[in-house]
Amino acid sequence: MKAVRVHEYHVDPTIDDIPEPKLAGPLDVIVKIGGAGVCRTDLHILEGQWAEAMGPELPYVIGHENAGWVQEVGEGVTNVAVGDTVILHPQPSCGLCLACRAGRDMQCENAFFPGLSNNDGGMAEYLRTTARACVKLNPDTNPADVAALADAGITAYHAVRKAVPLLYPGTTAVVQGAGGLGHIGIQALAALTATRIVVVDRNPDALALAKQIGADETVLADGNHVEAVKDLTGGNGANVVFDFVAEQGAENDAWQMTAPAGSDFIIGYGGELRIPTLDFVGGEKNVIGNIVGTYNDLAELMVLAQAGKVTLHTKQYPLDAALDALHDLDAGRVRGRAILVP
Amino acid sequence: MKAVRVHEYHVDPTIDDIPEPKLAGPLDVIVKIGGAGVCRTDLHILEGQWAEAMGPELPYVIGHENAGWVQEVGEGVTNVAVGDTVILHPQPSCGLCLACRAGRDMQCENAFFPGLSNNDGGMAEYLRTTARACVKLNPDTNPADVAALADAGITAYHAVRKAVPLLYPGTTAVVQGAGGLGHIGIQALAALTATRIVVVDRNPDALALAKQIGADETVLADGNHVEAVKDLTGGNGANVVFDFVAEQGAENDAWQMTAPAGSDFIIGYGGELRIPTLDFVGGEKNVIGNIVGTYNDLAELMVLAQAGKVTLHTKQYPLDAALDALHDLDAGRVRGRAILVP
Amino acid sequence: MKAVRVHEYHVDPTIDDIPEPKLAGPLDVIVKIGGAGVCRTDLHILEGQWAEAMGPELPYVIGHENAGWVQEVGEGVTNVAVGDTVILHPQPSCGLCLACRAGRDMQCENAFFPGLSNNDGGMAEYLRTTARACVKLNPDTNPADVAALADAGITAYHAVRKAVPLLYPGTTAVVQGAGGLGHIGIQALAALTATRIVVVDRNPDALALAKQIGADETVLADGNHVEAVKDLTGGNGANVVFDFVAEQGAENDAWQMTAPAGSDFIIGYGGELRIPTLDFVGGEKNVIGNIVGTYNDLAELMVLAQAGKVTLHTKQYPLDAALDALHDLDAGRVRGRAILVP
Amino acid sequence: MKAVRVHEYHVDPTIDDIPEPKLAGPLDVIVKIGGAGVCRTDLHILEGQWAEAMGPELPYVIGHENAGWVQEVGEGVTNVAVGDTVILHPQPSCGLCLACRAGRDMQCENAFFPGLSNNDGGMAEYLRTTARACVKLNPDTNPADVAALADAGITAYHAVRKAVPLLYPGTTAVVQGAGGLGHIGIQALAALTATRIVVVDRNPDALALAKQIGADETVLADGNHVEAVKDLTGGNGANVVFDFVAEQGAENDAWQMTAPAGSDFIIGYGGELRIPTLDFVGGEKNVIGNIVGTYNDLAELMVLAQAGKVTLHTKQYPLDAALDALHDLDAGRVRGRAILVP
Repeated sequence: MKAVRVHEYHVDPTIDDIPEPKLAGPLDVIVKIGGAGVCRTDLHILEGQWAEAMGPELPYVIGHENAGWVQEVGEGVTNVAVGDTVILHPQPSCGLCLACRAGRDMQCENAFFPGLSNNDGGMAEYLRTTARACVKLNPDTNPADVAALADAGITAYHAVRKAVPLLYPGTTAVVQGAGGLGHIGIQALAALTATRIVVVDRNPDALALAKQIGADETVLADGNHVEAVKDLTGGNGANVVFDFVAEQGAENDAWQMTAPAGSDFIIGYGGELRIPTLDFVGGEKNVIGNIVGTYNDLAELMVLAQAGKVTLHTKQYPLDAALDALHDLDAGRVRGRAILVP
Repeated sequence: MKAVRVHEYHVDPTIDDIPEPKLAGPLDVIVKIGGAGVCRTDLHILEGQWAEAMGPELPYVIGHENAGWVQEVGEGVTNVAVGDTVILHPQPSCGLCLACRAGRDMQCENAFFPGLSNNDGGMAEYLRTTARACVKLNPDTNPADVAALADAGITAYHAVRKAVPLLYPGTTAVVQGAGGLGHIGIQALAALTATRIVVVDRNPDALALAKQIGADETVLADGNHVEAVKDLTGGNGANVVFDFVAEQGAENDAWQMTAPAGSDFIIGYGGELRIPTLDFVGGEKNVIGNIVGTYNDLAELMVLAQAGKVTLHTKQYPLDAALDALHDLDAGRVRGRAILVP
Repeated sequence: MKAVRVHEYHVDPTIDDIPEPKLAGPLDVIVKIGGAGVCRTDLHILEGQWAEAMGPELPYVIGHENAGWVQEVGEGVTNVAVGDTVILHPQPSCGLCLACRAGRDMQCENAFFPGLSNNDGGMAEYLRTTARACVKLNPDTNPADVAALADAGITAYHAVRKAVPLLYPGTTAVVQGAGGLGHIGIQALAALTATRIVVVDRNPDALALAKQIGADETVLADGNHVEAVKDLTGGNGANVVFDFVAEQGAENDAWQMTAPAGSDFIIGYGGELRIPTLDFVGGEKNVIGNIVGTYNDLAELMVLAQAGKVTLHTKQYPLDAALDALHDLDAGRVRGRAILVP
Repeated sequence: MKAVRVHEYHVDPTIDDIPEPKLAGPLDVIVKIGGAGVCRTDLHILEGQWAEAMGPELPYVIGHENAGWVQEVGEGVTNVAVGDTVILHPQPSCGLCLACRAGRDMQCENAFFPGLSNNDGGMAEYLRTTARACVKLNPDTNPADVAALADAGITAYHAVRKAVPLLYPGTTAVVQGAGGLGHIGIQALAALTATRIVVVDRNPDALALAKQIGADETVLADGNHVEAVKDLTGGNGANVVFDFVAEQGAENDAWQMTAPAGSDFIIGYGGELRIPTLDFVGGEKNVIGNIVGTYNDLAELMVLAQAGKVTLHTKQYPLDAALDALHDLDAGRVRGRAILVP
């Protein structure tokens, strides 16, 4: 089959012809890929940024936002059958450690991450995953339409879902960064809460779109945005700030925009937070870390997607044009999400 | 192997010689039984009370409170290995449905209950269960010492664990029924909270023991006990009542003992609750249902047990004397818990 | 001033000319009434149903859903000033007991309830309440438009607000009873959650309106409604049932419609719940009592109302026509809520 | 009356003869001081560190940890009466803003802080406070024995109380800094949870005492303490770290000791936290700010204190010896807490 493989860092991947994956354990599932999202993390992989943390053996297939159809199942698989349409949680978990048993899939002690860790990902015709990664979809769902929700989507959804108890009527939430994840975040906030949604971004077009999908107020990140958020909130700041940027100083803006007794949810990364401990005490403010969502987060997000409450603008590329997609993403030429379709 | 089998309801089971169980799926585990608790539910099974709800095919082996050593594992089992000392959650779950993925094992859509449903239980030399039922113990633990915590223990623990947020200092908890489950409940309350613990029972000896294991106050259930609880709580009642009896009128006493804005946790069963809906509204009171605990509840309870914070009085019988154990239990001759040791 | 006073039970009240209320304590507030809701509870008061529980001295002024303008304030009042537009929480609380200090206003040990307990209510030109009952509104709000949210509104809102953590995407909520409170409940559910909303009522017109304000599905209460709800939920029932009826058998339907691990929220009253304790244990199901909302519930509901997310159909009557309003309500001739305007 | 007044920063306060305070509002309460704790914050006040944030007008009386007897009450006070023994929440709140109405006293919009803000404190014979600061005690309580719980105590208790849901059996909590607050924290953890308590401090004597009051393990802060905590927790770190130091690099140790999905609770202050945003994301870790506890926290802590579950070593000084107490504290000669007794 065809597959996009990384052979060397700082060099474009190549489209290779490799054997199809095979079942290796009783809970394994082989999925015929219907759509594979192209993510900024893929660019970071190519730059070698994940080499040390994940240690994949080269060459390997990238692609960690996948949806498709079940092709083959191991003897212990009971939740999906051949032919089912599925979206895949990016990190198959063991189901046996205490974290898994509490529903905290991302803290699984025995998980792997196809396309990132030492396992082939989904920019290919077929992918090997496990039963615990498969969320069954309505049979008429087009996998290419939803694939990007598998990682970007549940990351944004997970943060919003955790914040729901904090966002009752009368509160304000700031979404900093109205890109791919931010757009999911805005829609999830509008669907799950009655909070006032304030969106902050450098790009006026992104703000205009934000208005259409649920923002109550928008603020241009022009250097006066922290003050603008304070003005919108009686000088207090927001009860929750979702920081989808978290680099180049935005991370400190996010903290400044957070009200006393409020929480700064970090979802983006790249920067460094520097905060005097007195500020945590005086304001009783929190910084909340957020990772990719759980399996159930993905299942819930698919409910929202199938009800039309969360949608994602996508641009499809044939698998053969994977390099175009990666280059377009790198050059800022993709609006929404690039999707490879084998 | 030897096994205690029910051939007919309303008749004593017999000790039969049957083949040892075999692995039937990749997640299966065969456990050599080290101790099997004898539970009042076993008496109810013999009386046919579970025949309709569980529909087991006769004959079958009873015993649902089991601990022992791993004898053999399926190819997909990664959490335990041959020779490990284990205690078994009574209801192996699938690990794939939404309830399992949220950590709510008892709401699993595909679970079975060895010894109760159509699967052989643990009053035998060997038992077939699955990887998802196995909690690994310190190797030097004697399975017979802890087996009864597998079902009775986690049922009491589960209810207490759910109530922890309600039981801050200054609150009062009533434990109604200081038998096997109640004793675990009292110890769990003392370990997990700083609430005031009031124990209500008909038996003065049970109350005396309750005092030794954590009760702050005891009340004899002599007909004036509802009033006595009100007197101890400034006329309000308790913030949480744990009703381990819930039959023969005790269920309505429990409701009367519950303070405004309080919760009546039902763990026992047999009676019928009759409450005007106005009482729910006027007092903003709740009735909370409780089933057997989760896998993680069992793991947590074993932490308490291994730290000596929860202990259980047991009386051991050889497997051959299973009928004696059942008859002693029926006749009220067992203090604590009867345990069969093969 | 003119005021609607009860002189005798089972007899129409009269419109009397009585002295205006005066400040009696440092936190007292005199409010010029702009709108006073007419509630089914007023009919029950006239029937003497609250005589024993509340023990008001006759004659007294009824009316417990009030909004208007601040006329005069005691020396300790700092949160409102003369001329402010306000809606009034129905039960002024002390602010000093442990319940008040935890935000649980309705469990205040020292509260009173004007119009219900031994204090004059708001079917009059002026009302005496306290600073702790006053929620300040936008100055341009017409009190008559929002008055009914003061009691009916926050009662429905309070129940929904408590249930928010249970109603994530993929869940189902049933609203039983699409009358005044039910309509607020439906709108609050749609604003605060992404749950699927199923409305059950005997009246097809009420169901049609329910569809317009947020119901995803409607079910006619024709005797097959429990089964219909099960059919809509894969045989399970709803995760949460809001029972705004809770009498004449509806209370037992509500329990039957509740899924395993689900919760039956009781808001209406009049009936008697009869449930075997085994049903609480087997299904791990709960019954949750609900009383009038808190001060902050009212403040939050006003945010929703001022954003147009919760609206209430009203029919205004001059204060002099109070008897017409009461008779119309009794005869089922009021759609939405009757409001007296002095 | 005699009172300890600050006239100038960087200079010792003096003991002046000033008029007794008088009631100034209907909710005011005059308390005859029975004990006033001497706190490190008092030293910081004298150094001028709070001058800008609190802006008190000099001269003024310091002392913010107070207990005593009610001497006089305003006309609106209903919760205490003349002669009652009371401990005082350090920050009287308004009871009318949304934060107060939710039980979040420290976020009150209209609070003041006697002894810190522009109001005289309790190192005097009498103090003016309000009804909302008074927690009534058993009449036989000696105010000097409990005064220090009024600020130091509830600060430690508040952090522990918030963490209770995170600290189920099988978890580990680290207490960094076993001084005055840390000791309360250790005792509160032992009373409210069954977590494993690991105490980290530079001082071996402090660790020895920690063992006596509830620590399961102690770790000397000798530069290898982060590693030592990791070793005690299977390489993961602790589920919750309570950082009572939060300066001089300890704040970064605390973060390093925090396990994935864990929380770093900051209670001390003085340092600066520097954390790459990637660390929040990768580990899904949190930093939780903590301020002084609420009124109900104080009420709960007094329940623990009166049950003997939390005790504090104190050293009493007559009010006239206030300077000795301040100097002893500054020189590290006070074990436990210095208390002034008028």
